[in-house]
Amino acid sequence: MRAADLIRAKRDGRTLAAEDIRALVDGYVDGEVADYQMAAFCMAVFFRGMEPAETAALAEAMLRSGDVLDLSDLPGVKVDKHSTGGVGDKVSLALAPIAAACGVVVPMISGRGLGHTGGTLDKLEAIPGFQVRLPVERFREILARHGACLVGQTDRLAPADRKLYALRDVTATVESIPLIASSIMSKKLAEGIDALVLDVKVGKGAFMKRREDAEALARTLAGIGRSFGKRVTAFLGAMDEPLGRTVGNALEVKETLDLLRGGGPPDLVACTEELTAEMVLLAGLAADRDAALARVRGAVASGRALEKLLAICAAQGGDPRVLEDPSRLPTAPSRLEVRAPRGGFVQAIDAQEIGLAAMSLGAGRARVDDRIDPAVGIVLERKVGDAVAAGEPLAVLHHGYSGPGGEAPDRVAERVLRAYTLGEERRAPGPVVLGRVE
Amino acid sequence: MRAADLIRAKRDGRTLAAEDIRALVDGYVDGEVADYQMAAFCMAVFFRGMEPAETAALAEAMLRSGDVLDLSDLPGVKVDKHSTGGVGDKVSLALAPIAAACGVVVPMISGRGLGHTGGTLDKLEAIPGFQVRLPVERFREILARHGACLVGQTDRLAPADRKLYALRDVTATVESIPLIASSIMSKKLAEGIDALVLDVKVGKGAFMKRREDAEALARTLAGIGRSFGKRVTAFLGAMDEPLGRTVGNALEVKETLDLLRGGGPPDLVACTEELTAEMVLLAGLAADRDAALARVRGAVASGRALEKLLAICAAQGGDPRVLEDPSRLPTAPSRLEVRAPRGGFVQAIDAQEIGLAAMSLGAGRARVDDRIDPAVGIVLERKVGDAVAAGEPLAVLHHGYSGPGGEAPDRVAERVLRAYTLGEERRAPGPVVLGRVE
Repeated sequence: MRAADLIRAKRDGRTLAAEDIRALVDGYVDGEVADYQMAAFCMAVFFRGMEPAETAALAEAMLRSGDVLDLSDLPGVKVDKHSTGGVGDKVSLALAPIAAACGVVVPMISGRGLGHTGGTLDKLEAIPGFQVRLPVERFREILARHGACLVGQTDRLAPADRKLYALRDVTATVESIPLIASSIMSKKLAEGIDALVLDVKVGKGAFMKRREDAEALARTLAGIGRSFGKRVTAFLGAMDEPLGRTVGNALEVKETLDLLRGGGPPDLVACTEELTAEMVLLAGLAADRDAALARVRGAVASGRALEKLLAICAAQGGDPRVLEDPSRLPTAPSRLEVRAPRGGFVQAIDAQEIGLAAMSLGAGRARVDDRIDPAVGIVLERKVGDAVAAGEPLAVLHHGYSGPGGEAPDRVAERVLRAYTLGEERRAPGPVVLGRVE
Repeated sequence: MRAADLIRAKRDGRTLAAEDIRALVDGYVDGEVADYQMAAFCMAVFFRGMEPAETAALAEAMLRSGDVLDLSDLPGVKVDKHSTGGVGDKVSLALAPIAAACGVVVPMISGRGLGHTGGTLDKLEAIPGFQVRLPVERFREILARHGACLVGQTDRLAPADRKLYALRDVTATVESIPLIASSIMSKKLAEGIDALVLDVKVGKGAFMKRREDAEALARTLAGIGRSFGKRVTAFLGAMDEPLGRTVGNALEVKETLDLLRGGGPPDLVACTEELTAEMVLLAGLAADRDAALARVRGAVASGRALEKLLAICAAQGGDPRVLEDPSRLPTAPSRLEVRAPRGGFVQAIDAQEIGLAAMSLGAGRARVDDRIDPAVGIVLERKVGDAVAAGEPLAVLHHGYSGPGGEAPDRVAERVLRAYTLGEERRAPGPVVLGRVE
């Protein structure tokens, strides 16, 4: 195997054998294949794509570059959920305890936010004391005892993926479906799961702006999972306006607690219920969707899901009093209302602009090593379909971050205002779950 | 300028500004742009191509990364010739002294052979003592005094091109017309020339196998040269069978001496005359092609061209007695005839196969750091159109090299035999200069 020959083969549109892809990834981790060769390979993949078998081989090679959890000694069906990311997407925070309360075992390894998108780990860390880095043995213990554990990726999980992702980030080779899909699945398959629910976001605030791209990614992700014998359901999820009414880490934890207490905005509730019910179905704990939904709603209504979150939080070092009394969550010192310049109905809210606005308040990262402030963020007082009178608030900025990269609240307010489209007629909000991809 | 943004722009088919291309190349030389970024950029260029203005900007940026000769104080028009490489192409060895004998100033910077193709520097070094590495001042002196000097590229000539070429070689990004053309022209433009004759080879033994690719390369090369205000003529040259009857460094010097004494095979003579006459025309030393050809033939017939080569050779440290008595050239200890298995006419000789056969005898390099043997090579006793009887020699191997990578002469003989296509009917050889590209 010469790396240049494999690059040339991909460049010229040939299909690589699984063993060649494995040799390339292993060589890259060992340092025999240089980063400039891998960069050229990734760009060739960007243009030529990959066959399903090649994509699966790439995911497998990255998976095998590190540790793979074996949870087969734990009773129960292990099911995770993965979202491709968006703005205001705090679904995992409620979904994991609800699913666990329904009897699903949820070994959830999540990521951090970058750019306009948020990340589950950042939201969890808004809870004082919450530890997302745990030794594997502690992860297994919490999983065995509480049915869910939410942690970050360790250095030993798919190290080839981490190395490759860092390279793709600086070589303009991120936007390739086979590369994205194999990256995601190499980490998910390392979790020792039996089944997976995918929520591929599409829209202005999503990585995939066009429905056909999102569908292609969903099919590729599901195809990889199934080639490893996993049960996989892939949903398309709307991400044109932010999900729910909050963007910012502590604000999103608070909204999650509202949901687990039976409240929460309808789009967030609908998305959380649909995805969690599918996990219950894949775990074989309900006969059909209606039964699964009833079970999910029962876990919330009975308070068992909230209890589960409290137990998981305590087990992971978090302060459970914060979850009982959300006013103990980090709170920004200042508020600034973004008011409607005229009356009308909200036609659209550009989720990417809201995400970038929240980032510039200090809620997110422009670069991976930026520090964030858990307290700051944006509360959307009006969502698509809502009426507003001139002078009434569209959104409220929770600000006060003064670290590097923070922007003046007045300018952020202008950005948030620009993200809103107002019109004369009421426009009904679209569905939040757009359907399944077969 | 962020490198990743420029890579993305090229990847997405956008045209880059000249200043962006300059920033990328300068950053690459300085180490601010990483080699993995340049590799991804080159692969994006492979797929997206470049506009003429981008290609010229790339050539200029590489040119300006190093020294640029200024020969404006030397009287006379400076004209060089560049061939894209082939098998048996020893044209430069005769062309430079003939053109100089006609009054053209020829500052020629040549390369070495790699793979199946030969290189002018290797041929020159078959002359004992000949120095192809000279200080710039000595190069100017010889040029001023003799009208031609033949040297290799120094470290200070277009260093960005050297760095980039090494990267392309290991990332499967060599085969891109804008990258090839800007690489060639960045070096030619550094020579301080006023005009350039290009000989873009096409055929089995050439880098470009298809005529349309060769034409595109010729147009791109000429376009870059003209954008720098140079007079450029681009020819397409046939490279299906080897040029002339010899392949191997000392053998090719000997064939050159035959030509300068008024002999030599007709295809080599035709090619040398046409290209040299064009240099005379571009230098304004003849009114038309016929007058230029007459001047070229006169320089050979009078012996002035041979005298010129002797003078240049002596000035560059070579032993001129070798040129007066070619039996003093390095000679291989052994010969092996490759005989025709049946009678007929030679229909074709695969130049690439002959080049690889010569390489495996030790005449060429599989890798840039391989050592070569100047004495070994192949003499083609029969060329396309020639008749042969069963048992008569098609070719003679001059062998005896026993270094690493050398192959057994019997196996090389089989390879040479396979390169020949014999048939019943005589097939006339095609023209060696296929035409000009406008």
